[in-house]
Amino acid sequence: MASIFTKIISGEIPCHKVAETEDAIAFLDIRPLKRGHTLIVPKQEVDKLFDLPHDTYTKVMDLAYKVGQAMEKSIPCKRIGVAVLGLEVPHAHVHLIPIDSERDLNFANDRMSFTDEEWEQTVKDIQAGL
Amino acid sequence: MASIFTKIISGEIPCHKVAETEDAIAFLDIRPLKRGHTLIVPKQEVDKLFDLPHDTYTKVMDLAYKVGQAMEKSIPCKRIGVAVLGLEVPHAHVHLIPIDSERDLNFANDRMSFTDEEWEQTVKDIQAGL
Repeated sequence: MASIFTKIISGEIPCHKVAETEDAIAFLDIRPLKRGHTLIVPKQEVDKLFDLPHDTYTKVMDLAYKVGQAMEKSIPCKRIGVAVLGLEVPHAHVHLIPIDSERDLNFANDRMSFTDEEWEQTVKDIQAGL
Repeated sequence: MASIFTKIISGEIPCHKVAETEDAIAFLDIRPLKRGHTLIVPKQEVDKLFDLPHDTYTKVMDLAYKVGQAMEKSIPCKRIGVAVLGLEVPHAHVHLIPIDSERDLNFANDRMSFTDEEWEQTVKDIQAGL
């Protein structure tokens, strides 16, 4: 069965898309730890990040670099944290999370919610930095 | 003043080295969350990962890929988690952490300690997977 991320990539499930390349997609995490929390997802569906072919891994990390730099310009925070866990969805993905302290990068923290306008504004803010 | 990681790279401060390339070094975190917790550090001293030149960033993430794959072969765990925070030491570094649950990737968790023999064995275990 296709993963939820594969359904997002195919357009079957909507997302707040930030950027897309031939090999990967970046969209806002629907259960964000912070405003701007973004996922970088390879289009190839593999469970673990390090199981990706080297070339695809490099392209995924390349998109993380570009989106991470854009987020540092557009989202107020001390820096962009990076996390890969992958225990929730068996389709490799990289979290980019605006953080001000170590405590902000803890997946047990409460998740935020936003209005449609706020989601759209966050997409625009990040895209302005791309 | 040189960062503690630059002193490790120059050999001024010892470390449990796992691997080294022209651009980056991998060594065991001295305050590990789990046995095998490894840091990937660019030799170029910059504060934030995404401030690295693109080419250097790619080489750092390439070493993370190789060492991460080696850890998945040699350290018992569900998968290798990845984290970049960088609020403690102002010299960009990537954490590779063996995890069995989301809770394992929390920098507020207790740190482990090992005997000299155990540190050396962990280096050998990871290197056997390289």
